[in-house]
Amino acid sequence: MLDVLRNRTTIRKYSDQSIAPELMNELLEVACRAANTGNMQVYSIVVTQSASIKQALKPAHFNQPMVTQAPFVITFCADFNRFNKWCLQRNAEPGYDNFLSFMTAATDSLLVAEHFCVAAESKGLGTCYLGTTIYNAQQIIDVLHLPKFVVPIITLTVGYPAETPVQVDRLPLEGVVHYETYQEYTAEEIERIYAYKESLPESQQFVHENNKTTLAQVFTDVRYTKEANETFSDMLLDVLKKQGFFFQDNSKL
Amino acid sequence: MLDVLRNRTTIRKYSDQSIAPELMNELLEVACRAANTGNMQVYSIVVTQSASIKQALKPAHFNQPMVTQAPFVITFCADFNRFNKWCLQRNAEPGYDNFLSFMTAATDSLLVAEHFCVAAESKGLGTCYLGTTIYNAQQIIDVLHLPKFVVPIITLTVGYPAETPVQVDRLPLEGVVHYETYQEYTAEEIERIYAYKESLPESQQFVHENNKTTLAQVFTDVRYTKEANETFSDMLLDVLKKQGFFFQDNSKL
Repeated sequence: MLDVLRNRTTIRKYSDQSIAPELMNELLEVACRAANTGNMQVYSIVVTQSASIKQALKPAHFNQPMVTQAPFVITFCADFNRFNKWCLQRNAEPGYDNFLSFMTAATDSLLVAEHFCVAAESKGLGTCYLGTTIYNAQQIIDVLHLPKFVVPIITLTVGYPAETPVQVDRLPLEGVVHYETYQEYTAEEIERIYAYKESLPESQQFVHENNKTTLAQVFTDVRYTKEANETFSDMLLDVLKKQGFFFQDNSKL
Repeated sequence: MLDVLRNRTTIRKYSDQSIAPELMNELLEVACRAANTGNMQVYSIVVTQSASIKQALKPAHFNQPMVTQAPFVITFCADFNRFNKWCLQRNAEPGYDNFLSFMTAATDSLLVAEHFCVAAESKGLGTCYLGTTIYNAQQIIDVLHLPKFVVPIITLTVGYPAETPVQVDRLPLEGVVHYETYQEYTAEEIERIYAYKESLPESQQFVHENNKTTLAQVFTDVRYTKEANETFSDMLLDVLKKQGFFFQDNSKL
C-alpha cells in the first residue's frame, strides 16, 4: 500500500477505457471517510462526465487538454450552503459567512480530494490535479451553477492511464522537514536543497527554452508571476465576497 | 488498500509504543510524493517530539489532551520562505506576497498532510487532525519559530492506537455528490440527507447535554459559533498580513 503512495505520478493522458459506475461510486464512498471538521462535511463533490460541460470548464483551466480528454472531471468545492440550509430548517442561526469558515470548508475539500486521489490510484486509475480552480473560480461557479456559500477549491481529472511518465524530482527530505521547531535556512542550505533540482537536464532545458539564466527565474518570470498572482488574488477575494464568505467587517484588511 | 481508506477512524488515544525513526522517515518521504503546485513544494513539515514544545503548543489547540499524549505532533505549514530565499539567491524576484500564493501553499500543505495520514494509517498508526491550527496560528508561529511567509495550516497527532473507536456516521453519498453540475437542495432533500445523523442516539444525547432542541443548534450555538468564527477570522487575516501574504493593495476587501 505504501508503494501506491510512493510510486504515484501525475497522469495527464487517459485511455478510452471507461470507469465502471460501481467503481466510481465506491471511490466516492471511500473518499468521504477522509477526516473533516466536526463531522460537518462542509464540501461538495461535482462529478462531470458530459462532453459539453467539460468543454465549458476548459477555459477556466487555461484550456489544458486533460479537461476534455479525461473521462471524469471532479471539482471539489467548499460548501456551507447545504449546512446553512439545514441550520435554517432546524431553528439554528448559521454564523459561517466569514473567512475562517471558508478556510474550514476549503480544508475539508482538500482532504477529501486527496483521499479520493489515493483511492483512485490504488485501483489503477490516473489523476491530475488542476490548481487553476482557484484562479478562475468565478468561471467554474458559472458553469457548474454553484450557489452562494459554495466555492470550487481544486479539480481532479481522472481516467485509466495512457502514459507511464517517469517520476519527477522532489527536494531532499531535510529541505522540507524540520525537527522540533522551524530551523531557518542558511544560504548554504538553500544551495544544497535546490542543487539536485537545478542539475537535472530537464531543468536546464526549461531555463534554456525560456531564455532565462536560472531555474528560479522560470518560476518568477514565466510560470507564477507577481502580476498574475496579484490579479488572481483579487479575483479570488472577489469570489469569496460574492459567495458570502466575507460578510464580516472588512476593515481588518 | 481501499480498506485502509474505508475503515479509518480518528484516533485520540495513543499507546506508549514509540515510532521507529526509520518508519517516521519513510512516511515523510512517501508523504512528499503527494501532488503539489508546479513542483515548487511550498510547504514545510514540522515534526515535534519534545515534551516541552508539545506542552507549549497545547494551549493553541484548546488544550486537547492528544497534543501532549501523542508521541508526535506534526504541523504542516504553508511555506514560501524557502522558495523566496532560493529565488533571491538566483537573481529572481519572487511575487508570492499575496493571497493566491497563500492559498497555493495551503493547498500543497493539506495534500501532503493527507498523503502522510494515509501512509501512517497503512502502517497501523493512528492519527487525529487538529483544525485549531488556523484558529490560533500566531501562538503556533511563536512556539515553532515560523518566519515570515510561513503559516501553519493543519496539525496531526500521530502514534500507535490505544483505542478502537466505532466509525462515526457520514452523510449519504447523494447528499454530498452532484452529477454534471451542482443540484441545489430542496427542503425535502435537506430533511432526507440529515435524517440518519439526527436519528443517532449520540446525536440526541448531544442535543440533550447541551440543552438544545436541535442538533444543528449544537453546532451554531455551542461548537462553531458566529462570534468565535468572526474572532478567529480576524485573527487569521491578521496573521496572513503579518506573515507577508497581503502585501498587495487591500482596498479590494
